[in-house]
Parts: sequence; C-alpha cells; structure tokens
Amino acid sequence: MSMTEESKDRLIDLVNARELKTLKQELSDMNEVDIAELLGDLPPERVLVIFRLLPKDLSSEVFACLEIEEQQHIINSISDRELVRIIEDLAIDDAVDMVEELPASVVKRILKNATPETRTLINQYLQYPDNSAGSIMTAEYVALRPSMTVEESFAYIRANGVDKETIYTCYVINESRKLEGVVTLKDLLMHPYETVVRDIMDDDVICALTTDDQEAVALDFSKYDLLALPVVDRERRLVGIVTVDDIVDVMEQEATEDFEKMAAMVPSEKSYLKTGVLTLAKNRIVWLLVLMVSSTISGMILNHYETTFAALPLLVSFIPTLMDTGGNSGSQASTMVIRGLAVDDLSLNDLGRVIWKELRVGTLCGALLASINFVVRSIQFPGNTGVIAVVSISMFITVVLAKTLGATLPMLAKRLKLDPALMASPMLTTIVDACSMVIYFSLASHMLRIVG
Amino acid sequence: MSMTEESKDRLIDLVNARELKTLKQELSDMNEVDIAELLGDLPPERVLVIFRLLPKDLSSEVFACLEIEEQQHIINSISDRELVRIIEDLAIDDAVDMVEELPASVVKRILKNATPETRTLINQYLQYPDNSAGSIMTAEYVALRPSMTVEESFAYIRANGVDKETIYTCYVINESRKLEGVVTLKDLLMHPYETVVRDIMDDDVICALTTDDQEAVALDFSKYDLLALPVVDRERRLVGIVTVDDIVDVMEQEATEDFEKMAAMVPSEKSYLKTGVLTLAKNRIVWLLVLMVSSTISGMILNHYETTFAALPLLVSFIPTLMDTGGNSGSQASTMVIRGLAVDDLSLNDLGRVIWKELRVGTLCGALLASINFVVRSIQFPGNTGVIAVVSISMFITVVLAKTLGATLPMLAKRLKLDPALMASPMLTTIVDACSMVIYFSLASHMLRIVG
Repeated sequence: MSMTEESKDRLIDLVNARELKTLKQELSDMNEVDIAELLGDLPPERVLVIFRLLPKDLSSEVFACLEIEEQQHIINSISDRELVRIIEDLAIDDAVDMVEELPASVVKRILKNATPETRTLINQYLQYPDNSAGSIMTAEYVALRPSMTVEESFAYIRANGVDKETIYTCYVINESRKLEGVVTLKDLLMHPYETVVRDIMDDDVICALTTDDQEAVALDFSKYDLLALPVVDRERRLVGIVTVDDIVDVMEQEATEDFEKMAAMVPSEKSYLKTGVLTLAKNRIVWLLVLMVSSTISGMILNHYETTFAALPLLVSFIPTLMDTGGNSGSQASTMVIRGLAVDDLSLNDLGRVIWKELRVGTLCGALLASINFVVRSIQFPGNTGVIAVVSISMFITVVLAKTLGATLPMLAKRLKLDPALMASPMLTTIVDACSMVIYFSLASHMLRIVG
Repeated sequence: MSMTEESKDRLIDLVNARELKTLKQELSDMNEVDIAELLGDLPPERVLVIFRLLPKDLSSEVFACLEIEEQQHIINSISDRELVRIIEDLAIDDAVDMVEELPASVVKRILKNATPETRTLINQYLQYPDNSAGSIMTAEYVALRPSMTVEESFAYIRANGVDKETIYTCYVINESRKLEGVVTLKDLLMHPYETVVRDIMDDDVICALTTDDQEAVALDFSKYDLLALPVVDRERRLVGIVTVDDIVDVMEQEATEDFEKMAAMVPSEKSYLKTGVLTLAKNRIVWLLVLMVSSTISGMILNHYETTFAALPLLVSFIPTLMDTGGNSGSQASTMVIRGLAVDDLSLNDLGRVIWKELRVGTLCGALLASINFVVRSIQFPGNTGVIAVVSISMFITVVLAKTLGATLPMLAKRLKLDPALMASPMLTTIVDACSMVIYFSLASHMLRIVG
C-alpha cells in the first residue's frame, strides 16, 4: 500500500493553500519516494519552496529520487553551499547517474563544488562501461579487517555505518584492500564479542568484476538470493558493492529492453512518456525499413507464381491465414527460447533437445491446425477439396518448419555472438512468410497441375 | 562468479572415485545453491550418499534448493526422524511449495511427521490464492513489542534470530498481533541500549494484504527499495513477511509470463526444458486456433476483391510487405504500451497523450516508409506508377492506423479489466492485417478504376 491518491491530493491542497507549517509536519513523516512523487506533480516554481521545508537528511534522500529535470531545476536555484551538502550526501552511484544526464554547465558547477575525494570518485565511476557492474555499484560499504573482533566490528559499524548503503553485509579486506571474505551482521550478532572476524567470515565470496555485465550480476543475485555483491578489480581489490535494490531496477530495465528488442525496436533510455516523438520514431524506423525490404522476398515469390493464382484466384484468399499461422507458431517457439537463454535456463548445448522438442510440438500443433482448417474450409468453400488440401498440407509443413526455425535461429544467433532477440517475432515472421509462400505455391502448382 | 564447470567436474570425479572424506571437507565450505546444482547432475542413487555427507544445517538449506524430483527421491529414502528434522528446518514457504508439487502419498507422510504447529501453518498457507502475497510470504520474521528497549530487542534477536528469514527488518506488533511499526536492525544499532522501540520505529509502514497480487507487491519493492515487506490480514494483524530474494524470483517469473502471453501462449508453470511436449502443445494451440480463425477475415476480404487482383495480379505481390509492415508498426507501439502498463509507467489516464504521441510517430515512420517504398518499387517495377502509388498510400495509412491501434487496444483491454497482453503482436497483427487489406484494395479499385 503506497501513498493513496487522496493523501496526495490533500498534500497538494496544503501546498496551494500555503499551509507550510502543517505541510512541513506531514512531510517529515513521509517516505522519500512518496515526497519525490509529490514534487514531480507540482509546478516547478513550487518545488523549491517545498524542498526547502524538508529536514536536511530527508532532503538529500528525496533529491536522489527526483527525476533529472527536477534535480536540475533545484540545482539551478540553490546556493553553492546547499549544493555541496546535497552532493556529499548523495550515494556515489546516484551522483554519477545525475552527472551523466545533466548538461555540461551544470556538471561543471557540481564538480567545482564537490570535495576532491568525491570528484575523483565521480570521475572514476564515469569510466566504467554502461551496464557494467562498475556502473551500478556504490562505494558506501562497510569494510572490516580479518583481525578485528566482533566487538570492534560493532564499534566500527556504529561509528561509520550511518551513511553506508548496507551494513548488513560487511566485507573483510586486507591491508592492500584485497577482498578476503564476507561476514553478515547476523553472523556478528550471533557470536560472542571476543570472536575474531577471520574465524566467522565466509572466505568463499561470490563477487563480480567491475567490467562484468549487469545482467550476469542480476542472475547471480537471483541464483544465490544475495542482498549485496562485492565488486573487485583485476587484482581482486574491493572497489564497490552492488545492492539488491539496484538489481531490482536492473531486472526491470533489462526485461523492458528485451521486450523492446523483441518487437524490433532500439531500446529507449527513458520511459515511454518521457521519450520524444523523434527519438521514438528513430528507434523504430531502422528495423521497420529492414523488415520492409526483407518482406519483398515474399512479394517476389508471389510475383513468380502470378500465373498460378491468376488461374486460380481462390489461392490468394488463404495467404493471410498461412502467413499469420506460420508467423505465430514460430514466434511462440522463438520467444520461449530467447527468454530461456536470457534467464540462463537454456544453453547452446541444449540445441539438440530444443529442436527435437519443437519438432514434436510442431507436428502436434500443425496436424491439429491443418485438420481443423481442412474441415472448416471444406464447409466454407465446398467443391474446392484440391485447393483446401493444398492449403492444409502447406499449413502443416509451415507450422513444423516455423517451430523448428523459431527454436534454432535464436540459438544460432547466440552462437554467432549476436543477440538472440534479433530472431524474435518480426524477423522470424518475415523468414517464415517467405518459406510458407514457396511451400504453398509450389505444392499448388504441382498438386493442382496449374502451369506455373 | 559462481561455481565453475571445472570445479563441478572435479567434485563429480571425487564422487565417482568415492573419495568421501575429501568430498565431505570440500562440500562443507560450499554454497547451498552450488551443492544443489551438483546433486542435480548426479544419478539418483548417488544423491542420497552425498546428501548424507553434508553437515546437518547445510543439508536442510541444500534440500530447499533442490528440484522437486530430487526432494521426493530423498524423502522416499530417508527415515521418519531425518524427515522431521528437514521439515522443521525448512522455511514455511519452501515447505508449502514442496507440498503443493509432491504426490499425495508423500504429502501425507510429511504432514504425519510434522509438528502440529508446522502442520497448521502449512494448511493455512495452502489456502492463499496462487500468486498472492500470502502465497509467497514466510512466517519466519522477528516481531518486537513497542515497549521493548534496544537492549531487550538485541537479546531477543540473539536468542530467536537464527532461523528467521531476515533479522534486518523487525516488525513491531501489539498484544493482538496488530502491526504498529517497523524498525531496522540499523536503527537499533545506531541508538543507545536504553532507547525504547516505540520511539525509533517507523509507524508509517508499507505493507500488503495476504490477497494482494504478487506483481503489485513486486512494484512496491522496486519503488521503495525494500528488503522485506510485512503482510497483514484484513484486521491488520501481521501474518508473514515477503523478502526481496523471493521478489527477485517473482519479477523474473512475471516477466517470463508476460513474454509468453505476448507471444500468444498460456504461460508454463515450469522451465522450457522441464515442460513436456503435450503441455507445450496445449499451451500454444488455443491461441493458434483463435488467431487462425481470426485471420480468415483478411482472407474473406481478399476473396471479396478477387476480380480486382485477377485484373491486376501485380497487386498480390505487395500483400506481404503491407501486412508485415503494418503488423510490425503496430507491435512496436503495443509492446511499449503493454510494458508501460505492467511496470506502472503508464496509467489509463495517459490514453490521450499516448494516442497523440503514436499519431505523430506513426506519421513520421509511415511517411518515410511510404516514400522509400515508392522510390524502390518504381525502380523495381517501372511503368507501374499507379499501383505503386496505391501501395505507398496504403502503407502510410496502415502504419499510422497500426501505431494508433497498437497503443489504444491494450489500454482498452485494461479498461475492460482484461489482460493488456491480449493485444500484443499476434492479435494486433491479425486486426491490422484485415484493416490494411481493406485500405489497400478499396484504394486500388477506386484509384485504378478496376471494376470490383
């Protein structure tokens, strides 16, 4: 149960009535995400007034949840001193996300006001590749030494834990910052004060390299039920951690990208409503063009059989059904295979099993569809048994072929180090269309003895 | 970096060489997920031998990670005493998942051996609807009283926390188990021992009802960056918690279901390789049939214009390009809208903005595609300017219409309380196909003055 529309409306009424005292009281009890959502619904000139009502700590948290346009608006309206406080309070990954999207002049002002340490960190983070573990990690973690006792660890956490992204998983590093182990706050709590960290830490740490892909990192979180994962450089020095809340966002974002790629689009960086018309058109037109050109192959095949359907125009009526059924059958198979590869349920070694499975599924579905088609069409067009037999046989072959191609092509793409999503519905349908037209018309011209 | 193939092969070699001592040593240092994966690769008769080598605590954790077939094999081979230990060690949600999938005879043996408390809990959990918050929650949480001090809380957690799913978020309940607030372990750690929980707890708790849909719960985790969420009944009594590791699985599962639904399939319960051929065929055939029948509308439209293309067979060659381009344009729009609705980026209130956006994107894409088509086809088929003009105009209208329908129909489905994914590529393509054929042939028969 998140903030209701009614409570939001009541707060907006308070803003409009300038009941700032009541508002301040109410806001200080609210969740930062809800306050950010509320600010997003206010006109820009009101945002700053409300933002300044917030207690200092809360205001930084709210700032981190705002959309980039509102962040920029606030930065442009506050003093350098207020700006310093916000930058230093932000988690380094949030600061970097912001810097990556703001215009250069604003970034310059931010970097000028940041402390040298923060500036160095921001610059270091900016160098990690997009979508890498490095780009989503944060530097705010608790690092312990193997020789510390549980009591010393608690003292350290009490003194330094306030600003850490998580204190529930602590990392144990040696003098040269190499990762030696991991210990949870639960382990610490369940052991006597005099126990030494080395004796209770787990030295079999699951970790990621800064350059690892965020999708692979997300799979590790899902497989091992992690709350946080340490990120190390090539010398196994601890440089940051990834926390599960960021992984939840990564999973949502990666799934959205896969949906968009599988519908033949270049994935958007922003949400639908925030993406401009030109960008949307640009993201879509490339694949539409490629697919339009590819579909001319089916057209050329039809062109080749012009005399066949000129002699028997009824053949044309069955083209949509054949093309749609083939495309849908293939898309079903390719969707399952592409998704299976993405969540690591399938590997390239399974190719044989997948083909064998789809051959059988295709035979079952194809036989049923072809039989029903034969019966229904025989009633619809009595006296055309020959044509209807050709359509039904073509349908059977097309479905089996489509299922097999739908399963094989994404795996083939992966083997060639291409994105399996290339072989999703749109491209696959185009390929299956061409195949089904060749099957249909060559069968028709042979079986019905039409001179082609 | 999870377990490598080499280390797995080495362990399998140890199993085959019966080096049980070395194996026992190595296994005790391993992660439960990796051990479960290793057991899954062993022949059934070896599984029990290795399972019994594991230290008691680890063996229950490994058991929870096993596939249902292996769980059943172990249950059938162990004594009642061993079974009791495992059942009582399992988190209640894992026990329920297992009971739901095992055959009745095995379930009977489990319930007979469970303690009365566990039996009652299992029966209670079995009643929550599939995919509800109740069905994914666990009963192993830390509950504190508002009057406890921080010191008392720590003592309580130390004494009772070992078996809890999480100790990092503690729930504050009154005598009648009503949820009063939430306090994190971090809050407890950062306050002096004498502080009373009531004074530091957050009483503005984000919680779910047992009957809430798991997808809505996942959206709350993503929005508020939660580690755990309390689940209450209609009287606001705390009955369980959902933890983020389960939500990570829910998100993966819900995304997979959406992919399958959008490719016109009934979602599978198991992974692709574990789903039988008959089930796969059954999951796919219903929609293939519906779509096959729907596609006959396009066929009937073609049938109606038989004399038109009999007079000008070239018209037929352009059918695949028109149908594919229309289908792809529409699918792009519908995919973005369906996904936007699923992740709560779009609401029904945005319908006007979405239509206006897609009208403009459609006009841009349509104009470009139609122009390129006109130029390319004029070179390919010189002297057919009339036909090519008809194709290009039809393409423009089809693309604009497809984009608009693709954006509107999923939102309309949602308004009618249907699943927006119904209006994904397959169904949309069928609708757009019919529209494009009407546009194409009515334009052709009018502009080219062919007697229809």
